[in-house]
Formats: sequence, C-alpha cells, structure tokens
Amino acid sequence: MEANQQGREKRVIIVGGGFGGVAAAKQLKHAPARVGLIDRRNHHLFQPLLYQVATAALSPSDIASPIRKIFRHQENVSSVLGEVDSVDLKDQTVTVKGQRISYDYLVLAAGATHSYFGNDTWAKHAPGLKTIEDATEIRRRFLLAFEAAELETDPEARRALLTFVVVGAGPTGCELAGAMAEIAHNVIPADFRRVDTTTARILLVQSGDRILKAMPESCSASAHRQLEELGVKILLDQRVTDITPDGVKCGDEFIPANNTFWAAGVKASPLGESLGTELDRAGRVVVNPDLSIPGHPNAFVIGDQAATIDSATGKPVPGVAQGAIQGGDHVGRIICRELTAARAGNPPPQRENFRYLDKGSLATIGRNRAVADIHGHKLSGFPAWIVWAVVHVLFLVSFRSRLAVGLSWCWSYLFGDRGARLITGDSAMRIKRPPELG
Amino acid sequence: MEANQQGREKRVIIVGGGFGGVAAAKQLKHAPARVGLIDRRNHHLFQPLLYQVATAALSPSDIASPIRKIFRHQENVSSVLGEVDSVDLKDQTVTVKGQRISYDYLVLAAGATHSYFGNDTWAKHAPGLKTIEDATEIRRRFLLAFEAAELETDPEARRALLTFVVVGAGPTGCELAGAMAEIAHNVIPADFRRVDTTTARILLVQSGDRILKAMPESCSASAHRQLEELGVKILLDQRVTDITPDGVKCGDEFIPANNTFWAAGVKASPLGESLGTELDRAGRVVVNPDLSIPGHPNAFVIGDQAATIDSATGKPVPGVAQGAIQGGDHVGRIICRELTAARAGNPPPQRENFRYLDKGSLATIGRNRAVADIHGHKLSGFPAWIVWAVVHVLFLVSFRSRLAVGLSWCWSYLFGDRGARLITGDSAMRIKRPPELG
Repeated sequence: MEANQQGREKRVIIVGGGFGGVAAAKQLKHAPARVGLIDRRNHHLFQPLLYQVATAALSPSDIASPIRKIFRHQENVSSVLGEVDSVDLKDQTVTVKGQRISYDYLVLAAGATHSYFGNDTWAKHAPGLKTIEDATEIRRRFLLAFEAAELETDPEARRALLTFVVVGAGPTGCELAGAMAEIAHNVIPADFRRVDTTTARILLVQSGDRILKAMPESCSASAHRQLEELGVKILLDQRVTDITPDGVKCGDEFIPANNTFWAAGVKASPLGESLGTELDRAGRVVVNPDLSIPGHPNAFVIGDQAATIDSATGKPVPGVAQGAIQGGDHVGRIICRELTAARAGNPPPQRENFRYLDKGSLATIGRNRAVADIHGHKLSGFPAWIVWAVVHVLFLVSFRSRLAVGLSWCWSYLFGDRGARLITGDSAMRIKRPPELG
Repeated sequence: MEANQQGREKRVIIVGGGFGGVAAAKQLKHAPARVGLIDRRNHHLFQPLLYQVATAALSPSDIASPIRKIFRHQENVSSVLGEVDSVDLKDQTVTVKGQRISYDYLVLAAGATHSYFGNDTWAKHAPGLKTIEDATEIRRRFLLAFEAAELETDPEARRALLTFVVVGAGPTGCELAGAMAEIAHNVIPADFRRVDTTTARILLVQSGDRILKAMPESCSASAHRQLEELGVKILLDQRVTDITPDGVKCGDEFIPANNTFWAAGVKASPLGESLGTELDRAGRVVVNPDLSIPGHPNAFVIGDQAATIDSATGKPVPGVAQGAIQGGDHVGRIICRELTAARAGNPPPQRENFRYLDKGSLATIGRNRAVADIHGHKLSGFPAWIVWAVVHVLFLVSFRSRLAVGLSWCWSYLFGDRGARLITGDSAMRIKRPPELG
C-alpha cells in the first residue's frame, strides 16, 4: 500500500458492524486509508427479521452474514473481532481489551441495547430481542412452554404456561405477538395430543393509548384490528410494574404468565458514556448537524447510538435501519472526500449537513398481514405485506441470504409450516413437572 | 379410543427419538396401543450430516426436525420431552424425573455418547460431535481460531491457533478433517488480511494402521489419498496420550494445537446400566436374536445402545443409521403383530430373528470427494460423492429438510461458499490477545 503525504497511512476506525458501520465502511472503498471495523460479533445481522428467528420461521444464518465476507473484496477494510471498552477523543484512540488503537477518523456505530427502565432484574424473566442468542433464547422459551403445558395436569399452571406477554407494542412487539399467535393457533395444534394450543393467550401490553405509535393513527388502528383477528389480546394504557417468572404486574392487576418478552425500550450502547460529551436521556450522543461530535470534527456517531436531527425538517431521525444506513453513507462520504483532498494537498471540501430521507415505515403482523406508510400512502393487509416482504428480502445483505429467506418464506406461505422449530441449549431442564402419559 | 380386552389400552414406551426410535414408532401406526416416545430433545437429528453444521455448510434446522412434527398425523404417538433416569424391567416401568411410567412393551433406543476412554477431562478441550450444541460449539471454536490468529503477532502462537487436530479417523473424523481443510484452504483465504489461512494445518490422528477401518482397504487407501490432496496430514499408528488447551500428546511427541476435536470413541447410553442385565465393553446391552432383553421378552434394545448380532451372518451389526432403522422396524413389527393378535384373542405369532441388510457404506471427504462400498462395488472420488449426496438427501426425514439441504449444497457446490459461518455464544471472550491493527 502507498503511504500518504505524512508518511503514514491514515486510519479510520469504525465501531460496530451493523447497518450504520457497514454502510460507512462501504463508502470508504476508494478512500486512501485503512479501515478497521471492530465488532463484538463476527456477523452483520439483519435485525428487522430477528423476530422471525425467535418465532422459528428463519434460521440464524438466513439473516446474518459474516462481516469478513461482506468486505472480502474491499481490500482496505480489516475486520476485528473485539469489544471497544472506551474512546479517548483527545488522544484519538479507542481501547480494546486494554490495548489502545489510534485513529485519524472515528465512526461510532455501536447501536442500542435493551432498557428495562432501571429494573434490570426483569431482564432474565423477560428477554429482549437484539442478538441471535436473544432470538434463539426466545424461541427456546416459547416452544418449551408448549412442551411443559403438554405434561402439566393442573389447569391453572397450564394456563400460566400458555400465557405469553409481550411488553411494548412498537414494530418488534407487534411482529413478535402476531407471529406467536399464528404459531399457537395455526401451526402447531396438530402436533400436541393433550394440550389445545389454540387456547394459548398472547397479550400485547402497551403503555400508550395505541400500538405502533410512530406510525399514523390509521395504521395503528388497522394493525390493532389485524392483531386481534390473529387472536392477540392488546392491553392499552397499561404500565408494567413488575415481572417475575410467574407473571406480570400491570398496574394493580397480576397476570399469571410463565413467559414474558421485552420489546418496550432501548438505550444507546454504554460506550457513549466514555466520551465525556453530551448524551440525551436514552444515552445517545448528541451530534452536530454533520453527525460529528461537538468539538471533535474527526469523530462521528451514527445510527441508534446518536441523537440525530434531520437538518431539513429539524425532526429527530427514527431509530430504524434506514436512519443508520443513511448516516453511515453520509459520514463515509465526508471522510472519503476529506482524505482524498488531503492526499492531493487540497483544502478539505465543505461538509454537508445530514438529511434523512424517509422511505416510509412498515410493520408486519403475520402471514398476509401488515401495515405500511409510504410518503403518506397508507396500506394494510395483504398489499402492505407484499411491500414488506419485497423490501425486506431486497435489503438483505448477501444474495445467499436473499435466496434462502425467499425460499423459506415461500415454503411457510405455501404450507404454513415453520422449519426452524428447534429447542437447543438447556432444554428439558426447564420443565418443572414430571411427565404423565395417557 | 377403544380399550383392549383387559379394559386398559396397552402402552408402548420408546426411549429415544433417533433413527431407531422413530422407525419403531412408525411401525406401530396401526397397533392397538398408545405409544409414548420420550426424548431429551424436541427434535430428531440427522446425525450423519452433523459435521456439515460443525463446518458451517448447513444450519441446525436443515438437519433436524421436531419429533412432534414427524408424528403429527400418527395419532397414537405422544411425544414427551424428558430424560429417562432408569428402567425397572421387573416392574415394567421407566422413571422420568422421579415419576414412574408403566409399559406393556419397551423399546430402548437411547443411542451412544462420546467415550474418552476414561480421560473425561479431555472432553472440554476436545469436543465430540453428537448433538446440535456439539456442532455449533465445534463451528464456534474452528471459526474463532482464525479470528484469533488474525490478531496474533507471535508466529508460534499463531501456528498453534492454526493447527487443528481431529482424533479418530472413522467416517466422522474423516468428514470433519476434510471439510475443515477445504474451508481453511479454499473458502476463507480472501476474508483475512493478515493471516494466510492456507497455512492452517489439519491433522487427523488414527491409532490403527489405516483410516476408515470399517471399510475395505482399497477404500481406506483412496480416502487417504483424497484427504491428503485436500491438505489433511494423516498420522497413523499414533495413540493420543494427553489433550490440553495447548496441544495434543501423541506417544512422546507434543503437538502444539489450540483446537482438538474428538471423533475417536463412543459408548452406549448409561441408561443400560440400570437394567441389571449383561452389557458389553462399550456399555451396549447384550440382546437376544429377536433384539429383546434376555428374560424380558417385552423389552427390546436397538441401535447404538444394543450389541446386536446379525442372525444371518453371526456378525455384529455396525453402529450406523441403517442398523438402528432396521432394528426399529424389526421390533416395531413384532410389537404390532403381538398386540394385534392379543386383541383378537389369538396366540402371539412366532417371532423372527433380526437380520441386518447391509446397504453399503459411504464416507465423504469434501466437495466431489468420497468413498463408497456398495455390496462390494467400490467407488471413489466424484462418482462416490454423487452417490453419497443423493443417498443423504433422500434419507432426510422431512421434505422441507431435503429441499433446504439440496439448495444449500447446490449453492456451496456452485460458489464454494459456506453460508452458516456464524460464531454465536460466548465469542470474543475466547480471544486471548488484544487486537493490533495495521
């Protein structure tokens, strides 16, 4: 590789291999720099479809792609499997397991994690859905509940086993609740001899007065209707005050339920705390209109880790894949232009402010059911579902995933089957009662 | 359901949902009895393809099918997720978590587990390959080794990271070693920037004087040649005397290697010990020519859990899928006939002795490479591989698996790619050294 004018090749460090980090690295393809992409995982994950792994429609490898493979042909990118513990903006270094790595440009794209609003003890009783391990854990708990119910003779205990509570009715919560209702009521009834899986109750608890509150009211109403048709019971204006292995407390009412899933809140990666700059209430880094950190023009934050404002509308950018991708594209372009100019001995070009292009929002509820809002055009039911399916398949990172997901879905659609219905990990152990036959 | 003459419906308990147990239960489709199929897992596993999960070519759900789904339409089968702790042949009961379940007929098909020949401490340094968790653990260790090597600066440490030892050169060991060599040398070199993955050494250690010793000598020789072409180094007449996280001791020589995989020995399920009847050295239950336990005509043992003799040839039946399937068919038919006769008030029909039909043996070594011995017809290379691929795809339990596996393989074949290259579970944690960039 050629060295730059200062005799040392410039280095761009990107923290996080999600939508934002990958988009930024791709924009740096022709940049005169080495790019280090650091992630705790070896794979990029198509998070919007994670709930399909949790509900046994897709396998983990359908929605994940090794980061190395994505950048196989982009020679200036080095993948590093590791966790960044802290960032020193003044020294321009990041620390990975005690070792400092210096950078010329930094892109923080470490994303978000679950927030239990201070009730961290809830985490083990109500897993959230951010990683592949989360998804297979939810799948395990969901499927094991029916196994345990099949062996349970006490009607009340069986009812608690067959009551599933999803907390939070954003897109993830709605998708999870809809898919679970579909499985319990349509996919598995014939598999069980003693338990009637159609009696399973899926409760979707929402603190506000409507579900999918980021979407227009008509979409919320349509999604509400569609979820109820699938058999989901929606509880609005209910605040969860406690979660135990035995149930969920909503206000004063205790709902006996052995399985609760968390889709209510996220907070930004704790890495932001090491910066010493302003964070918002959700721990997101407050950034300049060009997405750089105030006072540090060579350090950017994008995606769910940043509190981003659309410079055109002045509105906050939503925490969705498109926000992260567009942020990554934006900062990747800035860095590439500046590095190219510096190398040619030219002054840095004027930076543009970040503008978010809202391509619309979508939420799916089950087979054939979805809601969409695309530039004010509202769709629901089957047409929305088709839009959703096409958009999601096309966005998948690698062609292989696209093919496998497309086929899995065709299969599910034709036969209403779920192929990935495996319980792995510590399995029979969770069943409390001994089995009884006959 | 109708009750039988004694006023109580007869009950058949099958322990184990592998090839043998599933075959026996299917034979009981029209039997006047309830069938309880007990397994620790909720899925039937196509074990011969497990090494493909371990080497990232297939996903777990491609080779596993929920047991409930297999018997969805066979109403007299109840699936029970649970572990049988002991069997009381005199009382005719099995115990699951302290609860006794009585039976009229019993089929034990609990299979085999790894045997470290008394060196159980080796287990954690050299995982074997029997379950899906085993396979994803081997995949994780194998893929993480390259990640760690990419960050390692010390040449000796890097060499130990890139040395993989497979102990035991039966079909599983050969398949594992061949697939690992193929990945390291052909699939992933372009993914890494610093480490040359083609320098990875895959060592296959065998205590005897040839590999695949259950096959004819010409097959062993051909497989040996094909493995060496793939870059596997085969060590014959070498007995492993110690395994640590740092390497393997073969006789007096210590081979520095951070990853060792175990394919050397199996022993029967410990459940056999609770019977109080004769076991062979590998813990397998010695059975009558009709596969029943001596002195207990209503209790049978099949598959890897039994020391079965082919009544036609007097030779031991090999511990392969075909042996288990044919054993399951055999005892399922006996039980079905006797129950039907009893119900009609007729005397029990004469039992036949078990005869094993050897359909041939096959081992695959990599893409396009295999050896086969079918009734004395020996194939090797591409023709053997085609036979292997067709046989294995056809044998898969459900059509969905067949389709997904077929497509995954077409894909791998056309593009030499491995889609399931995910590291899940506790990942970055295993990397000892901090990363260094550039």
